[in-house]
Amino acid sequence: MVKNTIAIDAMGGDNAPKSIIAGLAISAVRNPGVEYLVYGDKNKLIPLLKNRDSLKNIVKIVHVEDWIRADEKASKSLRRAKTTSMGLAIDAVANGEAGAIVSAGNSGALLAMSIFGLRKLSGISRPALAAVMPTISGEIVALDLGANIDCSSQNLIDFSVMGIVFAKNVLGKLNPRLALLNVGEEENKGSTIIKEASSAMERSNLSKYYVGFVEGDKIITGNFDIVVCDGFSGNIMLKTAEGTAKLCSEYLKQIFNSSFLGKISFAIGRSSFLGLRKKLDPRKHNGAVLLGLNGIVVKSHGGADSISFAHAVDLATEMSIGNYNDLIKKELNNLKSMH
Amino acid sequence: MVKNTIAIDAMGGDNAPKSIIAGLAISAVRNPGVEYLVYGDKNKLIPLLKNRDSLKNIVKIVHVEDWIRADEKASKSLRRAKTTSMGLAIDAVANGEAGAIVSAGNSGALLAMSIFGLRKLSGISRPALAAVMPTISGEIVALDLGANIDCSSQNLIDFSVMGIVFAKNVLGKLNPRLALLNVGEEENKGSTIIKEASSAMERSNLSKYYVGFVEGDKIITGNFDIVVCDGFSGNIMLKTAEGTAKLCSEYLKQIFNSSFLGKISFAIGRSSFLGLRKKLDPRKHNGAVLLGLNGIVVKSHGGADSISFAHAVDLATEMSIGNYNDLIKKELNNLKSMH
Repeated sequence: MVKNTIAIDAMGGDNAPKSIIAGLAISAVRNPGVEYLVYGDKNKLIPLLKNRDSLKNIVKIVHVEDWIRADEKASKSLRRAKTTSMGLAIDAVANGEAGAIVSAGNSGALLAMSIFGLRKLSGISRPALAAVMPTISGEIVALDLGANIDCSSQNLIDFSVMGIVFAKNVLGKLNPRLALLNVGEEENKGSTIIKEASSAMERSNLSKYYVGFVEGDKIITGNFDIVVCDGFSGNIMLKTAEGTAKLCSEYLKQIFNSSFLGKISFAIGRSSFLGLRKKLDPRKHNGAVLLGLNGIVVKSHGGADSISFAHAVDLATEMSIGNYNDLIKKELNNLKSMH
Repeated sequence: MVKNTIAIDAMGGDNAPKSIIAGLAISAVRNPGVEYLVYGDKNKLIPLLKNRDSLKNIVKIVHVEDWIRADEKASKSLRRAKTTSMGLAIDAVANGEAGAIVSAGNSGALLAMSIFGLRKLSGISRPALAAVMPTISGEIVALDLGANIDCSSQNLIDFSVMGIVFAKNVLGKLNPRLALLNVGEEENKGSTIIKEASSAMERSNLSKYYVGFVEGDKIITGNFDIVVCDGFSGNIMLKTAEGTAKLCSEYLKQIFNSSFLGKISFAIGRSSFLGLRKKLDPRKHNGAVLLGLNGIVVKSHGGADSISFAHAVDLATEMSIGNYNDLIKKELNNLKSMH
């Protein structure tokens, strides 16, 4: 496998391929030595690369005339695994030409095609979308964030195993603490499925990581490193947090612009406020990883701009060069054999 | 029914009965002419009322020696409907002595006892917890927020009817727009249940209110007036929004306290920042209403302080004096006969 080559679906996402190429240029500066296999329409890509000398020798375009649209059904997309930019980029990881693939395209199609092309890791019932979220006390990993709408208790346990491995190897937490997202902290709260998962974890070797249920308002205090949930509520949680952070930024902007004193106040506290905006900037945390496959798949936000897409490429690069998938496979076997 | 009498469970919540009595004192000033039937241990309540002359003539203590604990199972609590502060306060609404009841106690017990004591409105399959949420463009109502963990499509449709009535009569929106919380806006997104509810609404007379699916990050832009969801994801949404807003306040506080320039900046923009803090203050929106019963039941946050509890009492008072439950029953009949 060529670890320092990243496969890019250049045609997925609302701002493709423009923000994709601009994003690569940003990420390339931060990750010298990395090369990109870019799948897309060369008639659109070549003009975008024209004035980007920095990408000249590290981008290889693979011309593809077909791509998956945002509103296509996942089941339909599977038939075009060998003709589309998304399908072929995944293929590059499957056959070892690239160490990871990044796409800002249709999530359902990316999930279906990745399972089809890369196959699930042995012992994992369903792959899960994981992402890093900022909290008061640092970064945590949350999963599943939308790959699985309905989940069994076994799915939640598998997500827990993958979350532990991610927290150890990507976030560098030696003894990660794991919580299950629920509507209350008491044992009798929640659905039958979540209660089953909780008691199964307490009985297994996962118990040394498991700290119990967590509610939505406690996510942000970060008294744990992993939060596990079904894909429906995980998606609601992640997006609500994004939306609320945006609302706060909006309000702050209004204050600074609404009055003369507000403007002076901003001028004086400028660097701190810009620091805050950076902290709240969801683009910094763009990039959800599809865990549980024989290959690294990073899903960028569909509406990603270049800065945002660059962060998704950074994450894929870090995971590929760091051999994370090998580490994940190894630790997965250890943990699975334990519980 | 004595509209201007509110029944209070003085023993429920982490800070009861102290913050309950202090909260009443705050709400009483804002709502002259209102009286309170306060259920709780007189040995604890009388000392708290000692220096509160403003409450002297408007509070009537009903001595109760038993109350529901935070961790009790709802099923167990039902047996004590006639001996506990919560049960007797609900009873006061059932027999017409009070127009509404407020409790900061055990949610599960409050739900079970209220259904038992007040009975469901005709045609409603399950009552739902509704609350007002702030957005960029104003206030919206969200339901269910935790009363029902698993929901059928019929439940979601019933919640929609109740949400429409609430938005019209409590928020004063003449033509409220209703959205279903989902993991995507496209028709094929989400669980079978949510897809069924959506197509049933499109075929019914509710279609003139229904605007489609909404994702978690769009809640805050408020391009609708009602958001309907199952109790599990609704609870996650509400609490995540609360937690994230708190994180933003935390960050702002850190900025202002971390440096000399930060302190000067705060001093200059002081009134605006305090206005922002007020906007983000979740206490202002404390109080979730249990809709779908023959009586007004307001659930306060268990951790409510006096300011927070006062807002829940305000809401109960407004709904009782405004005859909202009669309006709700009337409009409910109209809407239910239509769809």
